[in-house]
Amino acid sequence: MAAYKGLIEKYRNILPVTEKTPVISLNEGNTPLIAAKNLVKKLGFKGEIYFKFEGMNPTGSFKDRGMTLAVSKAVEEGSKAVICASTGNTSASAAAYSARAGIKCVVLIPEGKIALGKLSQAVMHGAEVLAVDGNFDEALNLVKELSNKYPLTLVNSINPFRIEGQKTAAYEICEALGRTPDYQFMPVGNAGNITAYWKGYKECYTSDSDRYPLPKMMGFQAAGSAPIVDGHPITKPETIATAIRIGNPASWKSAEEARDESGGVIDKVTDEEILEAYKLIAACEGVFCEPASASSLAGLIKYIKQGYFKNIKKVKVVCILTGHGLKDPDTAVSNAVSPKKVKADIKEIIAAINL
Amino acid sequence: MAAYKGLIEKYRNILPVTEKTPVISLNEGNTPLIAAKNLVKKLGFKGEIYFKFEGMNPTGSFKDRGMTLAVSKAVEEGSKAVICASTGNTSASAAAYSARAGIKCVVLIPEGKIALGKLSQAVMHGAEVLAVDGNFDEALNLVKELSNKYPLTLVNSINPFRIEGQKTAAYEICEALGRTPDYQFMPVGNAGNITAYWKGYKECYTSDSDRYPLPKMMGFQAAGSAPIVDGHPITKPETIATAIRIGNPASWKSAEEARDESGGVIDKVTDEEILEAYKLIAACEGVFCEPASASSLAGLIKYIKQGYFKNIKKVKVVCILTGHGLKDPDTAVSNAVSPKKVKADIKEIIAAINL
Repeated sequence: MAAYKGLIEKYRNILPVTEKTPVISLNEGNTPLIAAKNLVKKLGFKGEIYFKFEGMNPTGSFKDRGMTLAVSKAVEEGSKAVICASTGNTSASAAAYSARAGIKCVVLIPEGKIALGKLSQAVMHGAEVLAVDGNFDEALNLVKELSNKYPLTLVNSINPFRIEGQKTAAYEICEALGRTPDYQFMPVGNAGNITAYWKGYKECYTSDSDRYPLPKMMGFQAAGSAPIVDGHPITKPETIATAIRIGNPASWKSAEEARDESGGVIDKVTDEEILEAYKLIAACEGVFCEPASASSLAGLIKYIKQGYFKNIKKVKVVCILTGHGLKDPDTAVSNAVSPKKVKADIKEIIAAINL
Repeated sequence: MAAYKGLIEKYRNILPVTEKTPVISLNEGNTPLIAAKNLVKKLGFKGEIYFKFEGMNPTGSFKDRGMTLAVSKAVEEGSKAVICASTGNTSASAAAYSARAGIKCVVLIPEGKIALGKLSQAVMHGAEVLAVDGNFDEALNLVKELSNKYPLTLVNSINPFRIEGQKTAAYEICEALGRTPDYQFMPVGNAGNITAYWKGYKECYTSDSDRYPLPKMMGFQAAGSAPIVDGHPITKPETIATAIRIGNPASWKSAEEARDESGGVIDKVTDEEILEAYKLIAACEGVFCEPASASSLAGLIKYIKQGYFKNIKKVKVVCILTGHGLKDPDTAVSNAVSPKKVKADIKEIIAAINL
């Protein structure tokens, strides 16, 4: 078996690359689909639940899928610098792939409220990080203008290569299951990822519509940051799930298309529901994801409670976990019980353990 | 190609498992071997340098390799709880696999100086975490005594299944290169990992001594925490590389055997050398590892500077990066330049970028 060499090499035939495209890779993709058997029991769910754990990408989030392609294409086109606006995960990924490629990376971040782990990555990878006094949407507008006027390649999700790279996750799910899932629950922030998965599933469907019937796309925004659900941009989006704190998604329309074409929904979950799901995933399955990721399971739990699956049995549900929990240790620690302090004494320890 | 299902399934024939062993897995292992071509150029090295990026294991460190086996065997033996002493990475892994297995996990940590990311994991995975007023070595002694007297399975690296699981990384390196490396540079803390790699390489050698000649094992401790190099236990070990801040390694003797049998060295590098290497790996190759991991490259750079490779050409060197940089974002941020603050204005941004 040849060693896995990243998603461009694996999915060359479905991606816009040629033999001349330099492959800038950190062995992204090939992430596990983890059967959540403990949770199925705990929730009394009549079906199968799987986590697609995208936190196992090299920079800890799904963004690496699009970035390997976007940066490879930028290098192919002779670009010497890339630029993006980012709440954190995109910047970490853009910076890592730019370092690998030996080109410059400029990152505009909204000032404040960026998870420590994410910011540390862009800085460590040598990106030029600028904190702009504005929110994500303002930073994105500036980046668009800058890439139009100056020799900078935009690598936000409006870069079409990002979506192409990200669609490979749908292929991987189909390969792992031997078919499509019936439902896919996932977070919705800038809405590029739901767009990408839907594109991937449609391509699988075209190639083999028997094994790959189209799944229903079930997207979830955070309640304080739910422009698509609320029907209008949110000027000051608020949620603990910083990775999806976006008030005016770049891929708004295509996310609605994915919802409507698939017969799915785009709905919202509260921060409390997100945190509850976040803890459940870690405690029941040993998988530590970032808070935004947990909106997928939060959505599934909400729909189970609403009776959405009442008359449906034996379904296969995939929940996308978009990033690793280590991206945001502060949220983890502030939402967990602190360690008990004990003396270095056997009896005191046994009493504390509660065997 | 069948989907990868974790290292027990892949390496079943070289591990102490039977068909009856329950497989507790989070798809650990199968981590990338990344060619560091930019660094080879930068260092003017006459050979090849590869990073084995163990940060891409599910909990973000190499500990998952041993833990999948240790916890699977604990469950097979009917154990309802595991216990370990840990500076962080072991506890994160033990807690994750215990959660997956549905058994209890007790973690003893030395009070203070634990990286936030690591602690957050054990707590999130529902482990009973106790902060003991003592250092790592005192915590380890308590854990040994507790596992002798009470029905708790010890999962520190003195658990022999840990070493067995960890040896699989040597097999993976041999598979990826089609041969053994000539030199392996790696961090040495509790010394279980150098023991495990050496065991793995020796097994590969036995099976095919032409393709798998034995590599030289080059282990590096942090200067303030170098008991093997200094020749005596260190009562109060100090280093920024918290994952190898261990004053009395459990696998001391077997680490020396690996060194002596392979004709390698165990030496030390300063915190400054570790931090320099840590930044280089992130900025030149796009790989973000935790500080302790960088002692491998720091060691290689030290030996290049000393002229160790002066008369040696075309060698293949593997540096083990034991954990992900996201494990310790504080060190990253405190050692990096802060983002510049700018107004949301195109001209001001272009001036700041320095295109």
